[in-house]
Amino acid sequence: MASSPLHIAIIGAGFAGLTAARALKAAGHTVTILEARDRVGGRVHTKAAADGTPVDVGGQWIGPGQDRVLALAEELGVETFASYEVGENLCLFNGELMRFSGILPPHAPEAVAETEATFQALDELAATVDAEQPWASPNAKELDSQTFEAWIERTATGPEARFWMRFLAKSVLAADSRELSLLHVLFYVKSGGGLASLISMSGGAQERRFTRGAQHLAERLAEDVQAELSLNTPVLALHQDGHGVVVEHAGGSLLADRVVVTLPPTLAGRLRYSPALPGARDHLTQRMPMGACIKIQCFYSRPFWRDAGLSGMAINESGPISLVYDNSPASGAPGVLVAFIEGEEAKEWTNRSAADRQAAVLGALVRLFGPAAADIQEYIDQSWLEEEFSRGGYGGFLVPGAWTTLGPALLQPCGRIHWAGTETASQWAGYMDGAIRSGERVAAEILAVSAAQ
Amino acid sequence: MASSPLHIAIIGAGFAGLTAARALKAAGHTVTILEARDRVGGRVHTKAAADGTPVDVGGQWIGPGQDRVLALAEELGVETFASYEVGENLCLFNGELMRFSGILPPHAPEAVAETEATFQALDELAATVDAEQPWASPNAKELDSQTFEAWIERTATGPEARFWMRFLAKSVLAADSRELSLLHVLFYVKSGGGLASLISMSGGAQERRFTRGAQHLAERLAEDVQAELSLNTPVLALHQDGHGVVVEHAGGSLLADRVVVTLPPTLAGRLRYSPALPGARDHLTQRMPMGACIKIQCFYSRPFWRDAGLSGMAINESGPISLVYDNSPASGAPGVLVAFIEGEEAKEWTNRSAADRQAAVLGALVRLFGPAAADIQEYIDQSWLEEEFSRGGYGGFLVPGAWTTLGPALLQPCGRIHWAGTETASQWAGYMDGAIRSGERVAAEILAVSAAQ
Repeated sequence: MASSPLHIAIIGAGFAGLTAARALKAAGHTVTILEARDRVGGRVHTKAAADGTPVDVGGQWIGPGQDRVLALAEELGVETFASYEVGENLCLFNGELMRFSGILPPHAPEAVAETEATFQALDELAATVDAEQPWASPNAKELDSQTFEAWIERTATGPEARFWMRFLAKSVLAADSRELSLLHVLFYVKSGGGLASLISMSGGAQERRFTRGAQHLAERLAEDVQAELSLNTPVLALHQDGHGVVVEHAGGSLLADRVVVTLPPTLAGRLRYSPALPGARDHLTQRMPMGACIKIQCFYSRPFWRDAGLSGMAINESGPISLVYDNSPASGAPGVLVAFIEGEEAKEWTNRSAADRQAAVLGALVRLFGPAAADIQEYIDQSWLEEEFSRGGYGGFLVPGAWTTLGPALLQPCGRIHWAGTETASQWAGYMDGAIRSGERVAAEILAVSAAQ
Repeated sequence: MASSPLHIAIIGAGFAGLTAARALKAAGHTVTILEARDRVGGRVHTKAAADGTPVDVGGQWIGPGQDRVLALAEELGVETFASYEVGENLCLFNGELMRFSGILPPHAPEAVAETEATFQALDELAATVDAEQPWASPNAKELDSQTFEAWIERTATGPEARFWMRFLAKSVLAADSRELSLLHVLFYVKSGGGLASLISMSGGAQERRFTRGAQHLAERLAEDVQAELSLNTPVLALHQDGHGVVVEHAGGSLLADRVVVTLPPTLAGRLRYSPALPGARDHLTQRMPMGACIKIQCFYSRPFWRDAGLSGMAINESGPISLVYDNSPASGAPGVLVAFIEGEEAKEWTNRSAADRQAAVLGALVRLFGPAAADIQEYIDQSWLEEEFSRGGYGGFLVPGAWTTLGPALLQPCGRIHWAGTETASQWAGYMDGAIRSGERVAAEILAVSAAQ
């Protein structure tokens, strides 16, 4: 080491915080991790069903290209298995239930052609974006001046192509096409290696799952920093001067040389800072809301859809759920369907009664999979809008106009305060892999400062 | 009174909070007003120049249709005077400095015609909007699916018409056309009585000023509730149960039956609430950023522009300031020009050095008014992005997609917590008048609850 050890306070024990803590500790610094919840993992959260089956109520999938999370799982010996995708998929669109293989259902040939062309147009446009500095992309200002919905309506005329693009916003970003900056969608597609990479199971971001649930990887990662980890410790305020940062938390306060904030930017903006943060940083956090997602899991005695030659994957236009996958454990027992309510439907259903929500979800599953879908053994759902320490999911996104006016503030340290979290990643932003990359990046950022001192 | 007196805690001593406090106290309830700053007025703030001239660094103008603020000024005997608007205006556009009378400068006739037609189209569209419930307006979803910029580019082809629309976003909403939901712009125009009402001096929202500064009205209003007002008392958290609300503030805590939060929604979202607020309310606060405004005042020995037959009003395309007015006191001595840096320029310039900013502003004033504009006696500017307890100005706006998915959460009380502030007004939202109306509305809301108990 080029200099004396620093004490670094890390706010948040999700993948970003745990990765940063591990790297900084390995480099000889001391760390303290302050986590608001009673567990590690952040937006990755594994519960257990009544029969003990691990249930990921948060992030769960990994796939090729997500090199950092894959490497970490391998290093720590955390077991994964291939997502189930044998059989035909379902699509309920415009009242018609279709079985199909591949990406698209049997719409009319001209609708299929337009949908494919629109996917391709989006992919080609995304390839032009600079994921490191989206504001420096060609035509960045123009791309950031419109909603994704405006682009959809200009690019596609048929209801099928438009539906698939809006479905993409919901299923990939948990957001509505009308609230997303087009530039942000392009950034996100580029960051995830293109559309095929983002939407595929095999060969894509949904390829594999963690046998014991995704939180298990976070727990293994936390083993190296167990002594430095304080759970149930929400941070309230950061007071910095030329000498350090006083971190005020629910249990008292501590003094650190540097602080890493891994919270989603909108929540990072809710801490109290003295001195107050620069206006540009604050305005960025005002323009980066969270996606809206309710994740539902229905348990059956067995995966009955497999008998009917179905994969369990279903796309549903009839609401409130938009997407379903087979989420059974590797053994296939019990059978589990995971369903997502996303975007405007999530904003609507998050404050409806639990009974109403369950009835609506089962109604949709019955429309897709038949009456057997009503015969559940257990129902577990989680609205991430209600999670006080995430306030949405999968991640934060930038609204129109924000990337091109305030983008650099996403990463720029504010004095002794550094920013991490999956939203700050330029590869796999919004994913576990992006969170890990951000933890590695922020650790390197602090090591560079430390070496220069 | 129908029931026993309540104790109501009011967060914020701007016009909304003071109005609510006064009305609730007059109805026999007890109130406590908690104000983070060392003064009343909120986004209305009057400082003094070196020679004692009152300087409104925040909101300052009132005009016809703003019935509640006008009535209050009359009731409290607070003196106002007519804004100066004798002489010709200036417009520096595309490198050409033009003198003109009326609304538009002497662009080419076809450019004038298109600009007027675009203004009219916007006004007509705004007239279709329901300002009480924007989400219930005809085609609300379509209007909320696009940025104002997308509408501009579709509606106007010439650079002049487009410039004027973008200038409108900056000067009226302190925001960029690319970040505003079209529906929000229409709501705002409707709320302010139409475009002519919003942009005019005589006959419009800039018609009159307060002789002793606008904060004087807030101070007079505060006289009735002086004993109930705690300055320098930022509120940190609200803990409610079936019996009341514990308000945790910088100086301790208090127990109230009801709480009125008058903060801009994005700042209201930063308080800690237990139980946590409903997801829809939280997501609304994530989607309602503040406008970006830096207000600058330059003092001269006399209003030299008047000698040249100029009104002092100037529209500037060359940056960083976009708009200038004569802001001299009623006596005309000293001469004062007020200039605004708004939207993306404000986001850029808010964290530049004070010297750089002053030089850039004076450079622009010299381009508009000639070398005499450099000969200042005093320079006072304020970036509202840096104001910790406002974090922007003039007000919060809804980004695309927010009104039509989360709009009702703007007003819906959360248990014993009620919402006020100019952002919650359906008439003159964003203005002092809207703040006063919101204070009256929330007081009536609480009186109705109280009467029903």
